[in-house]
Amino acid sequence: MKKFLIILNLFFTFSVLSQSDADILKKVYDASLSNGKSYEWLDYLSNQIGGRLSGSLNAELAVEYTKDELEQIGLDKVWLQPVMVPKWVRGAPEFAFIETKPGSTTPINICALGGSVATPYGGLKANVVEVNGMEDLKNFTKEQIEGKIVFLNRPMNPTFIHTFEAYGDCGKQRYNGAYEAAKLGASGVLVRSLSLRLDDYPHTGAMSYSDLPVDKRIPAAAISTNHAELLSSMLKLDKNIKVYFKQSCKQLKDVQSYNVVGEITGSEFPNEYMLVGGHLDSWDLGDGSHDDGAGVVQSMEVLRLLKETGIKPKRTKRAVLFMNEENGLRGGNKYAAEANRKGENHVMALESDAGGFTPRGFSFDCSDTNFNQVLNWKPLFKPYLIHYFEKGFSGPDIRSLKSDSNVLIGLRPDSQRYFDHHHAATDTFDAVNKRELELGAATMTALVYLFDKYGTNPIPANTQLKN
Amino acid sequence: MKKFLIILNLFFTFSVLSQSDADILKKVYDASLSNGKSYEWLDYLSNQIGGRLSGSLNAELAVEYTKDELEQIGLDKVWLQPVMVPKWVRGAPEFAFIETKPGSTTPINICALGGSVATPYGGLKANVVEVNGMEDLKNFTKEQIEGKIVFLNRPMNPTFIHTFEAYGDCGKQRYNGAYEAAKLGASGVLVRSLSLRLDDYPHTGAMSYSDLPVDKRIPAAAISTNHAELLSSMLKLDKNIKVYFKQSCKQLKDVQSYNVVGEITGSEFPNEYMLVGGHLDSWDLGDGSHDDGAGVVQSMEVLRLLKETGIKPKRTKRAVLFMNEENGLRGGNKYAAEANRKGENHVMALESDAGGFTPRGFSFDCSDTNFNQVLNWKPLFKPYLIHYFEKGFSGPDIRSLKSDSNVLIGLRPDSQRYFDHHHAATDTFDAVNKRELELGAATMTALVYLFDKYGTNPIPANTQLKN
Repeated sequence: MKKFLIILNLFFTFSVLSQSDADILKKVYDASLSNGKSYEWLDYLSNQIGGRLSGSLNAELAVEYTKDELEQIGLDKVWLQPVMVPKWVRGAPEFAFIETKPGSTTPINICALGGSVATPYGGLKANVVEVNGMEDLKNFTKEQIEGKIVFLNRPMNPTFIHTFEAYGDCGKQRYNGAYEAAKLGASGVLVRSLSLRLDDYPHTGAMSYSDLPVDKRIPAAAISTNHAELLSSMLKLDKNIKVYFKQSCKQLKDVQSYNVVGEITGSEFPNEYMLVGGHLDSWDLGDGSHDDGAGVVQSMEVLRLLKETGIKPKRTKRAVLFMNEENGLRGGNKYAAEANRKGENHVMALESDAGGFTPRGFSFDCSDTNFNQVLNWKPLFKPYLIHYFEKGFSGPDIRSLKSDSNVLIGLRPDSQRYFDHHHAATDTFDAVNKRELELGAATMTALVYLFDKYGTNPIPANTQLKN
Repeated sequence: MKKFLIILNLFFTFSVLSQSDADILKKVYDASLSNGKSYEWLDYLSNQIGGRLSGSLNAELAVEYTKDELEQIGLDKVWLQPVMVPKWVRGAPEFAFIETKPGSTTPINICALGGSVATPYGGLKANVVEVNGMEDLKNFTKEQIEGKIVFLNRPMNPTFIHTFEAYGDCGKQRYNGAYEAAKLGASGVLVRSLSLRLDDYPHTGAMSYSDLPVDKRIPAAAISTNHAELLSSMLKLDKNIKVYFKQSCKQLKDVQSYNVVGEITGSEFPNEYMLVGGHLDSWDLGDGSHDDGAGVVQSMEVLRLLKETGIKPKRTKRAVLFMNEENGLRGGNKYAAEANRKGENHVMALESDAGGFTPRGFSFDCSDTNFNQVLNWKPLFKPYLIHYFEKGFSGPDIRSLKSDSNVLIGLRPDSQRYFDHHHAATDTFDAVNKRELELGAATMTALVYLFDKYGTNPIPANTQLKN
């Protein structure tokens, strides 16, 4: 019978949601879809600034631009939070080919992985050992790997409906591949791009040498999925073919950068902080429109929509544009450390870092009580086709804010196309649809509005029945 | 209490859905996503054949190609159903400009609406009256309109979440605009393209002169949204500017064409027909990938997936590729007339004609009993993020099959991007995502499987409780 009491309670709670909640959500969506600013901001960020790798001039331009724009919204406070970030530079474009015999070569599309060392100045040429991901690497001996280029060619699994699960499932080969291969004496690593599509674009992304001494580090690059297929089939014909690649990337000293923060101070509970955020830095191959220009402009738009629709928050709202999510997470960590130091009680944080596609819902890292509270609001989202409300991971930049009692949330957009663009030259403004971006911003604003109104300390579900 | 009995019943019914249903759905999705044929078929249809306007050579090539491919699946029967279709041809590319004063012109992008007459051979030049859609046209007198070009500039409403509602809301200006304007003595009609995006592409589509005598018919064209905005702002500055346009389209005699039909004959109830379908014809400006190449290859894929996953239908399954949905609906009408003549009992029909985007669910035109039956299956679709199960319109090609007792269904994909491509040069293969297309085909197959297994005569919900 317990199940039915809960259901009864759901109906009850919905019926007492004031009509005005539905009206306010409609106002928010209408404003975002007919008079939104997110797309215009993203246009500037993508087309006037472009890729924003941490420590680059573009990253600093993006800090300036978004700070200026937040100031123009008329918030209570806008400021920069200093943070030291790593500066890795790609250098000259990478160059690579397959050599079937001396003089007979086929060019292949590669890009250095973020954090990789360069090849020797003249490039690296070696035989290739194809390995089906990190698990398979364990089947190889030092003898088989020594001096060779390890080609980690595990494809993303197309049968996962949530493409992020497919990413999680084989992302390790990019992040740890060079580390493990180096321990077996490999001279370099080529990793199949983490994309579910067959195309010609290599996808970069962070990798780590972990505790590997500097002189043991080997260059690591991503190869496009089409060329991974080509290399694999050529290896089947002839194990003795070689791959040449040259890259001149470099890790420089850390440099000064900033998180950008805008705030509307709460009228009743100014010490309850509710955060929306995305990350301002991006990889350098595209212009970072989906990852994570979308999350940046949506977070800015949440504050703007609150103002435009006349919602006066009771609790303090912050938009935080984090620096250095991609290759260090320094911005997220710094923000959390400062919040902790100042004793700022972040009762809720919502991150958008999964692309600017049609929003489907949210994943929640919170208590059952808070999660049930959210489920009560679900009917309000139905007219907007927002249906996905599940427990799960929130986002990399906000997870350090985790406490026993707060609510961390990740926006969950449709993920089918995301890895076609992720970390590649194809992550560009034209791949973002205006309406989809605006629906995401409105959906975030709607949830923030409800949390602001009802707070994060709901009366537990069972006691409501007794009212 | 009745509500809770229904809910109890829902839980009960779900719990008795055999585990194998979930397993079979998983098999269907896995097969579509890892080994599907739909994308390859669409590639051919779009890139090797192209736009398939009724009566064109391409339309006939598409008939041949899809018939051949259906035969290669190894169905029980594949045949062509003859149907006479209208043949309208665009002729030479349209040409148009705004003239602010003699010799001072700005080119604008237009295209003739399907079914329109040509302009006079030398083109048509006239003053312009801007009108905000069909309702607004009623505010104008014959005097104000006579001899002028009526510019129907009502934009699609961005606040509708379902973009098809925005289309329905202002589609009349395209379909009936010329008819109504001609009655007021207009010399021509320019209609703002039915798109939610500002861009440079005119969107064609069917229009009708209704009962207007041939000599009263005036040429009608669509203008791109960007140029509609431009023309509107220029008119605000100077009401006396003129527009020139020239088009040489023509309605020819009806020609022979075909619906393509493939069938798996039911093993237990061969006289219960369950249809899946899309339309083979398209407009001529793009290659018709979303409208409706996607629906065609998804319908073919349903039959192929049934075979590949070893599902042996109890009821007869047909994939019907309709001819001439766009400018006549002759294929749909012919199919229904023949089904009626032969007494074929179509207990279910499912149409995919809303683009190849991520599927969100279905709309159902059926009895409450049948709809409740479907709601019982909803939990089976949750792992695939299929959540939209609502009563509503099915599709234009199957609606003539409507009976008192059958179930007509429309696939409902995400609609946010649809009108960026609809009837325009932007409806091309690259705008279709492989996974999204495949998810649609799998979702259709899953529903067809369930209807095949459980039939369309469920025991009414209330009686099940007594079991």
